[in-house]
Amino acid sequence: MNNAVSKLKEYMQKFQQYETIENLLYWDLSTMTPEKGVESKADAIGYISTEAFRLSTSDEYGALLKELSTPEQFEQLDDALKVTVQRELRNYERFVRVPEDFYTEYVTCKARSQKAWEAAKKADDYSLYAPHLDKIISMTKQYVHYMEPELPPYEVLIDMFEEGMDTYTIDRIFDELKEGLRPLLAKIKESKQPDLSALKGTYDIPAQKKLQELLLSYIGFDFSMGAVAESEHPFTTGIGSGDVRVTNHFREDDPIAAIFSAIHEGGHAIFDQNISPVYENTVVRQVNLMGLHESQSRFYENILGRNRNFWTPLYEKIGDLLPQFRNIPFETFYRAINEVKPSLIRIDADEVTYCLHIILRYEIERAIFNDEVTTEELPSLWNDKMEELLGIRPSTDAEGILQDTHWSDGSFGYFPSYLLGSVYDGMFLEQIEKELGSIDELLAQGKIMEITKWLNKNIHQNGSLYTSAEVIQRICQKEISAKPLLNYFNRKYSEIYSL
Amino acid sequence: MNNAVSKLKEYMQKFQQYETIENLLYWDLSTMTPEKGVESKADAIGYISTEAFRLSTSDEYGALLKELSTPEQFEQLDDALKVTVQRELRNYERFVRVPEDFYTEYVTCKARSQKAWEAAKKADDYSLYAPHLDKIISMTKQYVHYMEPELPPYEVLIDMFEEGMDTYTIDRIFDELKEGLRPLLAKIKESKQPDLSALKGTYDIPAQKKLQELLLSYIGFDFSMGAVAESEHPFTTGIGSGDVRVTNHFREDDPIAAIFSAIHEGGHAIFDQNISPVYENTVVRQVNLMGLHESQSRFYENILGRNRNFWTPLYEKIGDLLPQFRNIPFETFYRAINEVKPSLIRIDADEVTYCLHIILRYEIERAIFNDEVTTEELPSLWNDKMEELLGIRPSTDAEGILQDTHWSDGSFGYFPSYLLGSVYDGMFLEQIEKELGSIDELLAQGKIMEITKWLNKNIHQNGSLYTSAEVIQRICQKEISAKPLLNYFNRKYSEIYSL
Repeated sequence: MNNAVSKLKEYMQKFQQYETIENLLYWDLSTMTPEKGVESKADAIGYISTEAFRLSTSDEYGALLKELSTPEQFEQLDDALKVTVQRELRNYERFVRVPEDFYTEYVTCKARSQKAWEAAKKADDYSLYAPHLDKIISMTKQYVHYMEPELPPYEVLIDMFEEGMDTYTIDRIFDELKEGLRPLLAKIKESKQPDLSALKGTYDIPAQKKLQELLLSYIGFDFSMGAVAESEHPFTTGIGSGDVRVTNHFREDDPIAAIFSAIHEGGHAIFDQNISPVYENTVVRQVNLMGLHESQSRFYENILGRNRNFWTPLYEKIGDLLPQFRNIPFETFYRAINEVKPSLIRIDADEVTYCLHIILRYEIERAIFNDEVTTEELPSLWNDKMEELLGIRPSTDAEGILQDTHWSDGSFGYFPSYLLGSVYDGMFLEQIEKELGSIDELLAQGKIMEITKWLNKNIHQNGSLYTSAEVIQRICQKEISAKPLLNYFNRKYSEIYSL
Repeated sequence: MNNAVSKLKEYMQKFQQYETIENLLYWDLSTMTPEKGVESKADAIGYISTEAFRLSTSDEYGALLKELSTPEQFEQLDDALKVTVQRELRNYERFVRVPEDFYTEYVTCKARSQKAWEAAKKADDYSLYAPHLDKIISMTKQYVHYMEPELPPYEVLIDMFEEGMDTYTIDRIFDELKEGLRPLLAKIKESKQPDLSALKGTYDIPAQKKLQELLLSYIGFDFSMGAVAESEHPFTTGIGSGDVRVTNHFREDDPIAAIFSAIHEGGHAIFDQNISPVYENTVVRQVNLMGLHESQSRFYENILGRNRNFWTPLYEKIGDLLPQFRNIPFETFYRAINEVKPSLIRIDADEVTYCLHIILRYEIERAIFNDEVTTEELPSLWNDKMEELLGIRPSTDAEGILQDTHWSDGSFGYFPSYLLGSVYDGMFLEQIEKELGSIDELLAQGKIMEITKWLNKNIHQNGSLYTSAEVIQRICQKEISAKPLLNYFNRKYSEIYSL
């Protein structure tokens, strides 16, 4: 190994330590930190992020990356190191333009804002959150402007969460979806909705937790390299190698939400748990391609988890844990998890109207970063768009703008990833059925691990070696298109609603 | 504020960040980390400890401490800064003699060894633990030798956990105790033991957790600056300011052990939660005086928690959570929590025979650091001493040498603190009763917070501003003596066992 490469590996090792620590601090903030301990965790996050920032913007590191980018050096690198050098150099050139003091303040501010969001959501009081959100928005604008002064800020944000993606492509895909969903949703609206009253009840939370364990194991989550906890908003995070964790949020009156959060986060975790260990100490290990990441969580949640046959081998076991399910006919349960009906909360939405929840957020984010809306106006803009897209209006901000955590930690540009993920899923589904045969049959036979293995081999093991567009090209030999997803929706819901 | 002082404060702030991160990593390792995530946490601990070590042994820091130690500078410092400079300079002079590579290896080895101990304890297999323990022992000897090449290693270890303490004093106190306990234990052995069969049963663990919450709140644990979790071995740790956490270990067949662990760890936490905020960024905030710290946990656990009247206001509430208690007469419960009977497990031992558990560990530690015993011989030495001191012999190592976590993290010299703590408690009890009147009466009236306030004022708020010996001198105006503890034992158990 040449000297520059071994230096790069040393840097990557150090960055990995920083990342382990930072992720652990964030994990702790969301799952465990008491009220008066928030400040000290936010300070520690600010401290450690600044140390990492300092290292990643050091002259020495910049010079090393430039040295490794020269043609004669670059050509000798393996693929993972090529990607590492390219991505790190691009980040170096972005970060080096951000003043360190600003960076520390931004990170600390985000960490604090998360707890403010939690409190505001609990109190259903936007005014508690607005000053934090306002600061996060203006700081994010400033941050992006430092990094890419010449580019439209929202394009930069989109690219940060899904490398190579842009609003031109998103517009095309989202318009195709809006267009395609309209007739389907209109027909469903005229159809008879199922009677779901049998699901009403109080469901023991410790038993829901046991069910989560069962589901995670069933889909392939590896507990020897993972753990679970509770948080206000479910999420997945890696905390150093060999350790990928998921959270959930349990409610006594609604076991279904927690079931699908478990499967969703489990999908994220299975991705990260199966990245090949050969990519240790390269950027390939971190999958910041959030569209691709969400495609995996949403594949498990929707394509598999909302399939009738997913539940065939499991339904009796649910009844063992939550006895109320013994009185819920299987068909009622299946209709419940596929009830297409405009609703207020994104993470509880069915897979069809979910698309509109994302389009709403995408449009609002564009408005924010085009300076077309003030923080004060955001709740009413949210509510107006809900009416426009979904035909319903939140009566409180907890059911509206306060429902998601993403903006509180500055993750503007993340939301489109969810829908891109579903679009990719439509394409992956088509391809898997070509290669493995009917998913319905595999699931009915309890052969879900064959699907997991296909995903491991074709997607997970490669980490972020390829961009999402490259992955799709390699697997499907096609451009990104919403058609397969629309086909899946039309086929599935025509049967369910007898359209 | 002069320049050197503000520089010192900056250093202390940085050390505090490192400490927050390190404690969080240790917390996570014990409460949450999955099997395959241990290595990455151990590496991160090694990394962050080395960063802290490097800073604390830097020439610049050494020069700053020396500058602040010159008479003209030192005299201008307030008491907390005086203690800070003295203690930091002593540590600097010790640490600067330890090679950095050795330090990193030692820290990483300790972090790994903890998980090996857990696994060995679960498997009841000393051979899984022995190589780790052997390495920890030899590295600890080397570590201490680096720091204080001229001093007997065990004296250095004792002083590290209880500043100013030495084996000469411990021998005097422990001999006094051994002597004093012999006749009491002999009389108890001849007395009738209570019938405790009514306690047998299976106790719901979620309900035990609710009981823990109730008990912690009752004694004064502040949940806005604390949290709880589970671990193999109960412990307390601070994780940055405003955040002091306790763990517990629950068993379905034994609610009593978890009850007293909760109260014990709660006592530790109450100490740290009540250190005056004026000591932020000084060493006074960290109470490494473990004898004093254990005196507080053990005061709550034993002097208060094993008092009949502690339970008067609470007993019905226990029955509400664990209905089996409704069928256990109050007097049976009281006898159960004060049953004096030689037993194998230290943390389940009654407060009287507990003393002998500590004396055993103290004698073994001395043998280890006087090179009188090999790692291989330790299990049988343990079992022989159990027979000699307590008259019983463990049948497995899980009930013997594998029961405690302390040696796995290199905390040799810690064990004597527990018993010193109880000795101090005897003295504090005498003084509290002089000032506040009978503890029995205060507890019967549910006025436990008056006692907590006395401890806050006289002990907790000062952090580690004074050594344990100084605290005792200030409060009791007396030298350390085991007599008050022996008086307390004799009085209490003469009544219970009608001696």
